[in-house]
Amino acid sequence: MVSPAIILSAPQLGENIGAAARAMANFGLSDLRLVNPRDGWPNERATAMAAGAAGVVERAQLFGSTREALADLHYVLATTARDRGVTKEVLTPEEAARRLRRAAAKGETVGILFGNERAGLDNDEVSLADAVITIPTSSFASLNLGQAVLLIGYEWFRHADVTPGAAIDHGPVHRKPTRDEMFGLFEHLERELVESGFLFPPDKRDHMIRAIRATLHRAKLTYQETQTLRGMIVALSKGKHRGSKTP
Amino acid sequence: MVSPAIILSAPQLGENIGAAARAMANFGLSDLRLVNPRDGWPNERATAMAAGAAGVVERAQLFGSTREALADLHYVLATTARDRGVTKEVLTPEEAARRLRRAAAKGETVGILFGNERAGLDNDEVSLADAVITIPTSSFASLNLGQAVLLIGYEWFRHADVTPGAAIDHGPVHRKPTRDEMFGLFEHLERELVESGFLFPPDKRDHMIRAIRATLHRAKLTYQETQTLRGMIVALSKGKHRGSKTP
Repeated sequence: MVSPAIILSAPQLGENIGAAARAMANFGLSDLRLVNPRDGWPNERATAMAAGAAGVVERAQLFGSTREALADLHYVLATTARDRGVTKEVLTPEEAARRLRRAAAKGETVGILFGNERAGLDNDEVSLADAVITIPTSSFASLNLGQAVLLIGYEWFRHADVTPGAAIDHGPVHRKPTRDEMFGLFEHLERELVESGFLFPPDKRDHMIRAIRATLHRAKLTYQETQTLRGMIVALSKGKHRGSKTP
Repeated sequence: MVSPAIILSAPQLGENIGAAARAMANFGLSDLRLVNPRDGWPNERATAMAAGAAGVVERAQLFGSTREALADLHYVLATTARDRGVTKEVLTPEEAARRLRRAAAKGETVGILFGNERAGLDNDEVSLADAVITIPTSSFASLNLGQAVLLIGYEWFRHADVTPGAAIDHGPVHRKPTRDEMFGLFEHLERELVESGFLFPPDKRDHMIRAIRATLHRAKLTYQETQTLRGMIVALSKGKHRGSKTP
């Protein structure tokens, strides 16, 4: 799947072009297109600001008009602030990412158009795009060009990301315990609790045991942690037995 | 619903604290907590960088340890890069935002902990949090502190945002046409197409008409646009009639 082109219309500061390139690289984007950058091209400040992503800046393509920069693309979205007063479909960044991926999956080339730092896109440029993306913000909105590229790039990237919403990071040595090892922990703990008189009265015992097991399950212990817990039980109960045996 | 506190552990540059404050303000966050900022506090560079969000910097609270900065919070997430080797639940920013909102909706106070620019959080600090957030990136990962706060703030904010995934921005004067007005357009267009011989042969006519109507529906026209289209039809057919009537 080909990643979206990022088209910057008349960007002013080289630093912002570099910041956009760096934001792109974080999310696997590399096709940068510049329409009439104000301070000319190439621009040393762009390269310096891009740092590790200087390659994106060096391979950027230069165009004389937005129309030319978009010419080979099939599906284009324009980023704008709210309320343009033009009749145009307005997408959240998330919905935009879904549609861009759907188009790219069909083999279409896609792009995202960003206006310049001062004035954004003009209405004619917006009219060249299939739809508009607006980043939701509070009433205080001060996103700069690099941040806008970062947020849109993030949405593109995360829609391909196979990371589940939540996962346990076990690291290499932290394997899950087998059922048998968990049962070993349960029996060890319950035996000591019976001996210590904690599981009393007897008619409440089963309920208490089930509650304790539920707690231990919920903790999603590693094997190592089950061993640590058993060590703790040994240590705690050892002192107690000694105390009770040698009064 | 109270917004999350943003806790910066041992931040180095004032500029980064200011950038974090500004990122926060974009997404309605205002509770900034600083643990041992390297260059002391207050810091003029932080205020300057925050610009319109200087109020967030001025109201920032200062703490002598991460533990103290988190003391009054019920639910805390720590942001880290991948693979810490600690057994901890790892959340995507989206899942983190869902959980933070769920906790806040129950009246719990919540917070998000960020490490410093150079080394991130140490294992002891991570151990103080309920779970970990990792921002998905490509192998090139160069997110700075302000950008990390920006992305997490964005996820928090957008989960409250009532903006539908896609919407048509009609502006104030661009009302939807009534069915009757759409039918008026259809009839007008079809009449002219019949007269011009476009809808030929007759046995294909109905199919062609349905296809044209589908196109017009899909365009989700405003009333104004239906009138513009009718004007275009009048203009186009007027010339044609004149041509055919005065050969």
